[in-house]
Amino acid sequence: MRAHENQICRRRTRAMTTITVPQVVPSPVEDAEALMKAFQGWGTDEQAVIYILAHRDAAQRKLIRQAYEEKYNELLTDRLQSELSGDLQTAMGYWVLDPTERQAVIANAATKCIDEEYPVIVEIACANSPAELLEVKQAYHAIYKRSLEEDVAAGATGNLRNLLVALVSTYRYDGDEVNGGLARSEAKIIQADVKNGVTADHGELIRVLGTRSRAQLGATFNCFRDEHGTTVTKALLHGSDPTGYARVLRTAARCIADTDKYFAKVLRNAMHKSGTDEESLLRVVVMHAEKDLRAIKDEFHRRASVALEQAIAKETSGDFKTFIMALVGTSQ
Amino acid sequence: MRAHENQICRRRTRAMTTITVPQVVPSPVEDAEALMKAFQGWGTDEQAVIYILAHRDAAQRKLIRQAYEEKYNELLTDRLQSELSGDLQTAMGYWVLDPTERQAVIANAATKCIDEEYPVIVEIACANSPAELLEVKQAYHAIYKRSLEEDVAAGATGNLRNLLVALVSTYRYDGDEVNGGLARSEAKIIQADVKNGVTADHGELIRVLGTRSRAQLGATFNCFRDEHGTTVTKALLHGSDPTGYARVLRTAARCIADTDKYFAKVLRNAMHKSGTDEESLLRVVVMHAEKDLRAIKDEFHRRASVALEQAIAKETSGDFKTFIMALVGTSQ
Repeated sequence: MRAHENQICRRRTRAMTTITVPQVVPSPVEDAEALMKAFQGWGTDEQAVIYILAHRDAAQRKLIRQAYEEKYNELLTDRLQSELSGDLQTAMGYWVLDPTERQAVIANAATKCIDEEYPVIVEIACANSPAELLEVKQAYHAIYKRSLEEDVAAGATGNLRNLLVALVSTYRYDGDEVNGGLARSEAKIIQADVKNGVTADHGELIRVLGTRSRAQLGATFNCFRDEHGTTVTKALLHGSDPTGYARVLRTAARCIADTDKYFAKVLRNAMHKSGTDEESLLRVVVMHAEKDLRAIKDEFHRRASVALEQAIAKETSGDFKTFIMALVGTSQ
Repeated sequence: MRAHENQICRRRTRAMTTITVPQVVPSPVEDAEALMKAFQGWGTDEQAVIYILAHRDAAQRKLIRQAYEEKYNELLTDRLQSELSGDLQTAMGYWVLDPTERQAVIANAATKCIDEEYPVIVEIACANSPAELLEVKQAYHAIYKRSLEEDVAAGATGNLRNLLVALVSTYRYDGDEVNGGLARSEAKIIQADVKNGVTADHGELIRVLGTRSRAQLGATFNCFRDEHGTTVTKALLHGSDPTGYARVLRTAARCIADTDKYFAKVLRNAMHKSGTDEESLLRVVVMHAEKDLRAIKDEFHRRASVALEQAIAKETSGDFKTFIMALVGTSQ
């Protein structure tokens, strides 16, 4: 079953990637040598670094890391950190990692500051397939010698903890089967908890959101909308939110209900504010470029009435702009 | 990493199995034919069925199931159900299943009656390695088109649900690393929740028990004993237990603290009562015969001052006795 799931993933990945890889790719050793050349001399040649690494897929970047380490006896990741700076340093630091390890590293950083970084935890828990989330958790074990679950659990309390821990823990069923009667009864359960307000015990709502399959939750959300004339997300907007639990709940509901729409919204918010939120921008682009960024771009275009690359071009500058534009699929 | 974990599992399995397989094993087709012969004629030849199936390992039984189905165009599992009866029917029904599927089937039955069958859920969650539990959950998806998590969550409420769902959900870290400072501080957390009684919110205790690695919990339990002069399990004995949560908590703590000792105790209890508890007896024997029953037998012998096979011989009779005795490793 896992092999089958992985196959579906890979198929989706190939179709949805936004990066471009040259028809004839240099050998990993040639790329490693070109990178070293870009590091040497007066100042780093950032454009050369981007020209290479933004146009290699995950498997190719892994081989380049290995070739670089063998040839120069230092980690490419370390050298990049010392050669680059600012947002480019952060973005490239994440980009060169193995995609699964990258998510583990980003999740770990978020567990240290869940109040602010909760969207990262929610995205990793809800936008990955169950098989992908499992791989992230396995990478987390290997790197940190702890579980993602225990680090998330230790960083929050109350409803907030119960929700986040359920989201990262559950190995959800990934099939399309839907139980209509269950969807109707659980839409009522959600409504009851929503009505009680976010300071009440949300055990039932968290149970539903935290354990049901994505297909089942889609059916439940539809029943809710049919019954109440509004979406679960909008129904969750009312009332005070002293612990920050309600915004996490909304984030999770939106990410589960429509992942592409959710990420399109994160990108719009990142570029709507006075001053671009580079961190959210680079997180979404770096984490999704090789996965589903094409669909997110389409959704962004539909909703923002401007192409993602145009929006990014307006909001970013310098080497960071070059890099991010390369990942979203338009060369400057 | 998974391959490595599986390797450790397999090593442990080979050393700990209590079943005996003949040096020269008939082909799966020959075994299937011998089974059909045992089914035909006046009444089933139960001894012949046991003689074959109790002395084949999981891989061999799988091949026999396949050969039987190909040759006779019916499921061996179905035929066994119609040919056998009573405890032998139940025990053999579980035994012929693939070990991982068997756990999924047993877990599913338990989710329908968690108040009574909670030990089954606890055992599957806590006595398996994280990799083994994951395999059970994957088998559960495949058979029931749902997750184990959602079925457990739907069958309980309050502290009881939070605990059981945490136990079945978390993909625990499986390494030996222990954080001593954390063990000391979390021993205090456990003590605080124990002191508050089982009707209080046990969020912290459930977080610790539900997410930390087995090694870390071992260290925490040791700190607790050093500090309070009693074990966590014994400290949990006091106070009323209106929801049945406390007994589940104790079961989980005992199963995590010392799995062999826990199962030895389940077997002693199964044979201590007026009238043997055949269901618990066959569950432990069938589920552990090919895994760790040798260690459980040793522990039983130490604590009961009688060998497990002697105790079972005294408490059982007929074909069921023959079968269970074959699985625990002594021929009659």
